[in-house]
Amino acid sequence: MALMTAAEYIESLRKLKTRVYMFGEKVDNWVDHPIIRPSINCVAMTYALAQQPEYADIMTAKSSITGKTINRFTHLHQSADDLVKKVKMQRLLGQKTASCFQRCVGMDAFNAVFSTTFELDEKYGTDYHQRFVKFLEMVQEEDLTVDGAMTDPKGDRGKAPHQQEDPDLFLHIVERREDGIVVRGAKAHQTGSINSHWHIIMPTQAMKEADADYAVSFACPSDAEGLYMIYGRQSCDTRKLEEKADIDLGNRKFGGQEALVVFDDVFIPNAYIFMAGEYDFAGMMVERFAGYHRQSYGGCKVGVGDVVIGAAALAAEYNGAEKASHVKDKLIEMTHLNETLYSCGIACSCEGCATKAGNYQIDLLLANVCKQNITRYPYEIVRLAEDIAGGLMVTMPSQADFESDTVVGKNGETVGEICQKYFAGRSDVSTEDRMRVLRFLENICLGSAAVGYRTESLHGAGSPQAQRIMIGRQGNIEGKKDLAKTIAGIKK
Amino acid sequence: MALMTAAEYIESLRKLKTRVYMFGEKVDNWVDHPIIRPSINCVAMTYALAQQPEYADIMTAKSSITGKTINRFTHLHQSADDLVKKVKMQRLLGQKTASCFQRCVGMDAFNAVFSTTFELDEKYGTDYHQRFVKFLEMVQEEDLTVDGAMTDPKGDRGKAPHQQEDPDLFLHIVERREDGIVVRGAKAHQTGSINSHWHIIMPTQAMKEADADYAVSFACPSDAEGLYMIYGRQSCDTRKLEEKADIDLGNRKFGGQEALVVFDDVFIPNAYIFMAGEYDFAGMMVERFAGYHRQSYGGCKVGVGDVVIGAAALAAEYNGAEKASHVKDKLIEMTHLNETLYSCGIACSCEGCATKAGNYQIDLLLANVCKQNITRYPYEIVRLAEDIAGGLMVTMPSQADFESDTVVGKNGETVGEICQKYFAGRSDVSTEDRMRVLRFLENICLGSAAVGYRTESLHGAGSPQAQRIMIGRQGNIEGKKDLAKTIAGIKK
Amino acid sequence: MALMTAAEYIESLRKLKTRVYMFGEKVDNWVDHPIIRPSINCVAMTYALAQQPEYADIMTAKSSITGKTINRFTHLHQSADDLVKKVKMQRLLGQKTASCFQRCVGMDAFNAVFSTTFELDEKYGTDYHQRFVKFLEMVQEEDLTVDGAMTDPKGDRGKAPHQQEDPDLFLHIVERREDGIVVRGAKAHQTGSINSHWHIIMPTQAMKEADADYAVSFACPSDAEGLYMIYGRQSCDTRKLEEKADIDLGNRKFGGQEALVVFDDVFIPNAYIFMAGEYDFAGMMVERFAGYHRQSYGGCKVGVGDVVIGAAALAAEYNGAEKASHVKDKLIEMTHLNETLYSCGIACSCEGCATKAGNYQIDLLLANVCKQNITRYPYEIVRLAEDIAGGLMVTMPSQADFESDTVVGKNGETVGEICQKYFAGRSDVSTEDRMRVLRFLENICLGSAAVGYRTESLHGAGSPQAQRIMIGRQGNIEGKKDLAKTIAGIKK
Amino acid sequence: MALMTAAEYIESLRKLKTRVYMFGEKVDNWVDHPIIRPSINCVAMTYALAQQPEYADIMTAKSSITGKTINRFTHLHQSADDLVKKVKMQRLLGQKTASCFQRCVGMDAFNAVFSTTFELDEKYGTDYHQRFVKFLEMVQEEDLTVDGAMTDPKGDRGKAPHQQEDPDLFLHIVERREDGIVVRGAKAHQTGSINSHWHIIMPTQAMKEADADYAVSFACPSDAEGLYMIYGRQSCDTRKLEEKADIDLGNRKFGGQEALVVFDDVFIPNAYIFMAGEYDFAGMMVERFAGYHRQSYGGCKVGVGDVVIGAAALAAEYNGAEKASHVKDKLIEMTHLNETLYSCGIACSCEGCATKAGNYQIDLLLANVCKQNITRYPYEIVRLAEDIAGGLMVTMPSQADFESDTVVGKNGETVGEICQKYFAGRSDVSTEDRMRVLRFLENICLGSAAVGYRTESLHGAGSPQAQRIMIGRQGNIEGKKDLAKTIAGIKK
Repeated sequence: MALMTAAEYIESLRKLKTRVYMFGEKVDNWVDHPIIRPSINCVAMTYALAQQPEYADIMTAKSSITGKTINRFTHLHQSADDLVKKVKMQRLLGQKTASCFQRCVGMDAFNAVFSTTFELDEKYGTDYHQRFVKFLEMVQEEDLTVDGAMTDPKGDRGKAPHQQEDPDLFLHIVERREDGIVVRGAKAHQTGSINSHWHIIMPTQAMKEADADYAVSFACPSDAEGLYMIYGRQSCDTRKLEEKADIDLGNRKFGGQEALVVFDDVFIPNAYIFMAGEYDFAGMMVERFAGYHRQSYGGCKVGVGDVVIGAAALAAEYNGAEKASHVKDKLIEMTHLNETLYSCGIACSCEGCATKAGNYQIDLLLANVCKQNITRYPYEIVRLAEDIAGGLMVTMPSQADFESDTVVGKNGETVGEICQKYFAGRSDVSTEDRMRVLRFLENICLGSAAVGYRTESLHGAGSPQAQRIMIGRQGNIEGKKDLAKTIAGIKK
Repeated sequence: MALMTAAEYIESLRKLKTRVYMFGEKVDNWVDHPIIRPSINCVAMTYALAQQPEYADIMTAKSSITGKTINRFTHLHQSADDLVKKVKMQRLLGQKTASCFQRCVGMDAFNAVFSTTFELDEKYGTDYHQRFVKFLEMVQEEDLTVDGAMTDPKGDRGKAPHQQEDPDLFLHIVERREDGIVVRGAKAHQTGSINSHWHIIMPTQAMKEADADYAVSFACPSDAEGLYMIYGRQSCDTRKLEEKADIDLGNRKFGGQEALVVFDDVFIPNAYIFMAGEYDFAGMMVERFAGYHRQSYGGCKVGVGDVVIGAAALAAEYNGAEKASHVKDKLIEMTHLNETLYSCGIACSCEGCATKAGNYQIDLLLANVCKQNITRYPYEIVRLAEDIAGGLMVTMPSQADFESDTVVGKNGETVGEICQKYFAGRSDVSTEDRMRVLRFLENICLGSAAVGYRTESLHGAGSPQAQRIMIGRQGNIEGKKDLAKTIAGIKK
Repeated sequence: MALMTAAEYIESLRKLKTRVYMFGEKVDNWVDHPIIRPSINCVAMTYALAQQPEYADIMTAKSSITGKTINRFTHLHQSADDLVKKVKMQRLLGQKTASCFQRCVGMDAFNAVFSTTFELDEKYGTDYHQRFVKFLEMVQEEDLTVDGAMTDPKGDRGKAPHQQEDPDLFLHIVERREDGIVVRGAKAHQTGSINSHWHIIMPTQAMKEADADYAVSFACPSDAEGLYMIYGRQSCDTRKLEEKADIDLGNRKFGGQEALVVFDDVFIPNAYIFMAGEYDFAGMMVERFAGYHRQSYGGCKVGVGDVVIGAAALAAEYNGAEKASHVKDKLIEMTHLNETLYSCGIACSCEGCATKAGNYQIDLLLANVCKQNITRYPYEIVRLAEDIAGGLMVTMPSQADFESDTVVGKNGETVGEICQKYFAGRSDVSTEDRMRVLRFLENICLGSAAVGYRTESLHGAGSPQAQRIMIGRQGNIEGKKDLAKTIAGIKK
Repeated sequence: MALMTAAEYIESLRKLKTRVYMFGEKVDNWVDHPIIRPSINCVAMTYALAQQPEYADIMTAKSSITGKTINRFTHLHQSADDLVKKVKMQRLLGQKTASCFQRCVGMDAFNAVFSTTFELDEKYGTDYHQRFVKFLEMVQEEDLTVDGAMTDPKGDRGKAPHQQEDPDLFLHIVERREDGIVVRGAKAHQTGSINSHWHIIMPTQAMKEADADYAVSFACPSDAEGLYMIYGRQSCDTRKLEEKADIDLGNRKFGGQEALVVFDDVFIPNAYIFMAGEYDFAGMMVERFAGYHRQSYGGCKVGVGDVVIGAAALAAEYNGAEKASHVKDKLIEMTHLNETLYSCGIACSCEGCATKAGNYQIDLLLANVCKQNITRYPYEIVRLAEDIAGGLMVTMPSQADFESDTVVGKNGETVGEICQKYFAGRSDVSTEDRMRVLRFLENICLGSAAVGYRTESLHGAGSPQAQRIMIGRQGNIEGKKDLAKTIAGIKK
């Protein structure tokens, strides 16, 4: 099968019997639901851009399994150059959607599971790696979107999985059968689960023997029996349901999504199991997935940052303030911070190296440094954007006011006319365009896109402290002490 | 008349015929409108606390006009101690509402107009000061809430008021009559306009002769003929309209508000006019009001910060992470930043001095330094709060899900039961309490309260660059150069 | 006796037989030693300014013991206003010396020992308080400079005083006699010990019973038998010994000083003992002294900051760059940071309150917040100063080059002429003045004054973590949690 | 000729008749002068490491001119990989010297002059490129160290070169002869000029026609007739002259150097002239050199940072504080900042591309972003290092004290014994080792190494504002506006 088009992708979702719940109700036509659809449009963009010749080099790759041209989102990275292109693809998608486009988690899971199963098999003589390769071949052939699922609900954070009062607070094997396993539990904060065809489940942390049943990795289709999803609510989510909110949405077409994915005794056939009790490899899988995903943010958030910088520059222009030296300086600072993030994304890629299994892995120290900066700079970029935008971003009446025919003025002016009159900026810029750019910034600074650009930058791929622990471990402090001893004349 | 109770205040609003428009329609019972009411509740709190004996010292004062006990929000500051108490009152209100409580703008306007009219009269032999004192006596006697209105829409920021294509983009006198003036224009970003009984209008910037008609200050009741308001929309505003959103609101009871206040040829009788063309005093009124208002933020935002710190500490506790050293350190950093803001609020107060008119003014340099920090630290406090809260803050299902009876599980579990199961934290904390504190943080970080705690901190009382200009002017660089010359041995 | 003049102060030092060692040798005429003298000049300035009528209000006070006019450096603070004036006095001294002027430690010790001995006596029925008052009366009468000494060498930081291999690593009582005690040990980092007439020794930390002999406080003259000092070396210290270094010193006249003060079995008569074993009051004395001293930095370092800002502005002017918008913005930022520090110094003073003994104490939370900012902002102020100064600050030839007659050029130009030619800036500014201001900045950024402006800001009055611990303790997190519970609707 | 050894390099310097002045006098044996020698040792290290097989891959390269193995410091980068290796070589040297090792400027000049002369010749039909290639062949063959000189004294910064009162304040052609040119002027802040065999001179800024005589580039040996150097003084420079300062120096062996290089009518033969009036290429040469040099800092300063981190970790260990969570966190933060700098150095390299002339150039935007971060993070790293080190770093007595036999104690203890006693830390660490690491940190934070690690990080390769201007130009704000328009639904 060739690369799917965006339209084919959307149609393919309709064929799935995915069960989605929102506001306490089952959502039947979730593909066209106004709150859900923007996140589907984001994934669709990963298909659409792969069709465009000018992006062929970064959006597609030659499969290491079949030799065919595939979407890079399903690719096993074969070189540092592949890792760099991955980051560039992500920046491009960020620029085109100003959102989280969700398909990265699958790609990062593929590469982590591929190399981990190889080393696991080496030790235990299992055949997980071959199973996985076969699964991935299907994904590449059918150009599927796959969610990568790691984070469990975790319950009391002071306790190990098996110590929890409710054993299901970490996903685990409840039955082992000849033909497969039955799993129970849930994965939380699942970005891009609903709009995926399949899911790859991975353990959430390093495990010890007592937690062997929690050391489980497998693939499973979105509409597997017993699997369902409960949609998370976001800031301003219901604005998407309003009749007259095209402008007020700021980013009408694209958006992110998170859900709780519940596994209610789901059966997984052997062919799709990639780990089932080998607890000593749980940590490796987590660390590798996290490493790739921390790299990813050095691409996607940079792309979103590009749009934020552009919008802030537009807002300044529409306000007539674009020549003020402090405005120019703030745009430079935003650019500087955004490109620092990009530098980190590029560096951990170009310093990547081959795994035993043959695919390429990022530099672990630099990927953690990358993500750590992501937990800081988008917040400062947003603050600077709000500074340039001015207060109108949050005090402006609604689109319904701007379009209202209700008479309000002494001379018969409508509410709409009064809004047009008093919110006019420069005479050569329409009030509507000014509203549009300010609403875009509202969306990214405190609307639903802020979930993706801010909170996800903080906690996605691991919270800040997780990176600090890794930086501490990878920083080779002992080696640095030796350097200092030599210079200072201290005998070792 | 005695101090009003909160209930009396709310009733007093019902008697006003204030015209309010929202989503393109006139709102009839705006006092009970779910989107508007939280901001009324905030102002009501300024009445309620003044009734409580334990807060008498900071919530009330002895009127310098009548000698009677009045609400401090209507007081002319008589000493540096009064200025300090103002800040403490604001911190208290912030702690009790976690919102902008809106009544400060009036208080700051009183003190600025009082001293400016005194000096204006001295020069021009006018009697504005006496008019104003009489007006203020009524405000104190009737314990009224008064909005202070300064910011005009401004149109093209590269042009002076009289140069705008539409002359109404700055509020101005369109007719001078024997008994008063007629004004036209609007005031934008008006925090707390709807829930006020009266308004004090001030010019928006320093003016020159050609803009004399724009140099206008006056008082006017909320339901004056020709006056109406268009409500600004906020992040998550319509969540307040949802049936099951008590928890999802985060702060169900309190909130802020902004509106465009339109003056459609409103007649102002002479008794309420405090400036009408004396353009050389426009700058003084602006600078003094801004000074007081920049001080104010050193109280109110600190009070909100206290609640944010408390909520973050609670979230950590409910997550079972309160003993992690990095969590404790983040709470210390939040406290440190918040108390630095408070220090600035206190310092510019205690360094205040008497005006010619006799009331007390803050230290202008330190008040600007105070506000400049306010444009930075709440953003960092919010970032740290989001860090401690964890991603669940933005991925959690809705209250409707938590309360849903829809069956979803193989064993008949409802959506609500599944949510309770998987979002449980420590076993001694209810899932609902965990939701409540996370929703509070969502509200302050990216919901409607973020408008008040973040964007208003940035732009309220003047955008960051406005403070920098004042700091540059007040910083006495020449004096500092002399100090350096003396030390470095450079002859002057 | 009246207030001493600066000259009398210097003469009074000559009469002392203080033993000082430097570079391994005893220094005989230490009063005139070029490395030591600048720090004496700083203290002399505290006498000189007290003689000037225009500074009388802040430099002098009315003694609470004798009712006479005394130097404020010997005063027991009687009100919040006294605390504020203390900070203003320190800012003034900082402006006049651009150095640490060292006399504050004594003042802070007076006030801490005064209130602690009062409460100690209350519990134990001792008479330390009266002894201390009598001692202080002498200090006030004779206008003495007194060093306050707290920090012990400490040895292995993981061990308590009595656990150290060498028991002398904390100063302790080695003999108790009827007429007094004999003490052994040392105090490290002693700023302003050599130029003091007397010393007040305090314990270095809270203590437990096993360390009772280390819980000791007393006064002792600089030339007591068995007491000697070893001078600490500073960056660029020997530049003060150079023949032609007037300009190269940057700040020829003033500077700081630190020494190790050794107590080699020094006998202390009863009259001067203020604690001798009451270990449960060691913590109180430390906390109170540290509180006052953390406030102090909100004055002195701000004054130095004023000179640094002035010097940076001068450097910009002499370079011809003073109109560049980025230069102006950096000066504003420096001013903003410096005034934030001042605000903290003022706020913790004006929020002070009376102790049981009657003198005034600062607000402990805000004083720690003050010092915490001091550990950060001077570093940023220095960075901005270096930015404005340009690289010449560290690449410029020596004064000896500028004054050299050695012929170097083809046409007989001397080294001095060549330096004058090529380091000329604006034609209306002498090359020498340009050198002077750059050398001043070198001194403050990385020369001997950097010890006082940077490292001392970091570690003086306690290292950053010490303040964080206090902020954590004083921040009332439980109260803040209650605020959050109320707002979020969580039942307590 | 093969690669020189370190010893051969030092001998080769002795053969030069370079004229050096310091403290107003001519220095005869400058190779062995204690103040100068450390900077020679740094350059010697670039020779020494190139001899070690384990560093062959990064220290040497295959010449694109001759095909022979050469020191990478003389190489024309042939690929992005070469650019990455350059950065790694610089990090290695930084680790081995903890100093600026000075040989980079020449390497960066080679690559900038190579590509600029190619494009210049294309336009003007000149043969500068070939001349340069021939010169470089000699450099590679003889393994020479070459200084790259750009910065002129500049005089009044508000004036162009030809507008200065003294025409020599920018280096210029004073005579054009058939066989060459005669130049006059000076280059300031010349890092590594004295220890170089040759110099490449480049113009200091973009120029216009009136400044054609200032648009000049050429090579010239260090001992050319008319060329001499005046040594710049550094913080603590004379400590190197002290008898007992081995330990007090902190970094006894290595250091940096800056000088004023004066061209007193120096004749340059045609073979060594690479630009002589083609003012429209001055800007390109400056921009390219600056780009390479801004990349360089992403290597060298990172290497120094490694040693600083190691030293801080050692200091914590010797103080017994290495297990405190705040200490560990500060080391992590230092590592994080340092690796962010490295990421920027790597990213601008790996995103490099070929010039018309065939050598590789860095990504200009990212190289400027790299350097901008360098102007910030080393300052914060230093602050954190000072925090961990503790105050002893600046209050410790001199080495002479530690080694003194002067008797001071009642029982005959010497000054040295007393120092040993009271400055002991953990019993398993010698007091001397503790001193050594603290003195190393003193040196890097405020001693002579601070010139290289701090001020040079700020101003070397262009001051911060120079990078901001480039970031503004290279940031493609217009393209970003288009992205925002598309998302926000604004028609272009």
